Amino acid sequence: MNPTPTPEPTALLVVAHPRTDSLTAEMARRAQARLEGSGFVVDVLDLYAEGFDPRLGPEDEPDWADREKEYSAEVQAHMRRVAAAEVLVVVFPLWWFGPPAILKGWIDRVWNHGFAYGRSRPRLAGKRMLWLTGVSYTEADFLSLGWDRTVTHTLRTGISEYCGITEAAVHFVYDSLHADEPALKAADEAVGALLDRP
Amino acid sequence: MNPTPTPEPTALLVVAHPRTDSLTAEMARRAQARLEGSGFVVDVLDLYAEGFDPRLGPEDEPDWADREKEYSAEVQAHMRRVAAAEVLVVVFPLWWFGPPAILKGWIDRVWNHGFAYGRSRPRLAGKRMLWLTGVSYTEADFLSLGWDRTVTHTLRTGISEYCGITEAAVHFVYDSLHADEPALKAADEAVGALLDRP
Repeated sequence: MNPTPTPEPTALLVVAHPRTDSLTAEMARRAQARLEGSGFVVDVLDLYAEGFDPRLGPEDEPDWADREKEYSAEVQAHMRRVAAAEVLVVVFPLWWFGPPAILKGWIDRVWNHGFAYGRSRPRLAGKRMLWLTGVSYTEADFLSLGWDRTVTHTLRTGISEYCGITEAAVHFVYDSLHADEPALKAADEAVGALLDRP
Repeated sequence: MNPTPTPEPTALLVVAHPRTDSLTAEMARRAQARLEGSGFVVDVLDLYAEGFDPRLGPEDEPDWADREKEYSAEVQAHMRRVAAAEVLVVVFPLWWFGPPAILKGWIDRVWNHGFAYGRSRPRLAGKRMLWLTGVSYTEADFLSLGWDRTVTHTLRTGISEYCGITEAAVHFVYDSLHADEPALKAADEAVGALLDRP
């Protein structure tokens, strides 16, 4: 008998930019190549291309008295894609020191009560996550104004770690209007560092 | 001849919640009453009720080489409402330590290059602004985890002050699932404090 083949690990690559010729799209293509090169099956979730609606309505509002609440079919489908992934890589431009609305709403709607948090052991524990974002500021300006701490607090502590993802990082590609090959290589390495963790 | 009447000052009241029976909606109604009681004409912008689409597309993407870029008609209409207001009050639930996607996208699209920033004197300078938000955390927990600093940095420094609005504040209504009359009165007073500034 043949041994049962080991299933390939899955990565969810979330992309949030309206143009496919953007730096974000380029960073996402490189992340996909890096993930596939490491043996991952990559589920690409291009939020704009899929027409994701980021507006949370009553059907997806958390019910604090019912962590088994059945959310909309669209949200349930997205939850399955998150649940299936060992690794999450989210690529986006930093707008107003946060994610674009289409990405914020994906968190608002999909990372919901009873699924991503609100249980003794969150279902997202054990996953690894990278927030990969382009920033127009230079590194010196961004750090001197304290934005690295604020954004990392919001994304890594407030979202990833809140949902039990302790292996989470935020990587900034600074001076994004002039991103060069070394900056893109450093982003590739941030993806790699996520995969190399024990 | 009769003297020309002094035009009444205008306030823009932005509301971001899918339900009209929410705490957010109640806070907005009280803010409206407080503003009208002080002689303001209040332009109520209920983002959900108006069906605002928070997804920034290429037509509203800033062109760094052209601060005179003509944005979409929808965005231009929203810009006129912002420009007309002396006072801006934005009422919303804090989701993931930030604004709901529908509100984030209103900033992404409307508070755009050449309008809200990117000129020697931003057109928003001289306005006053209040971010009024309900938080499920108790005040003690929220402060001990540093969220007041992170959220205030993002909203007041990163958005309001970035656009020249130096008279800006963030007011948190803590323990929002059990908000009582004193908490709502404190929110009223935060609106009042904005109006009483010299």
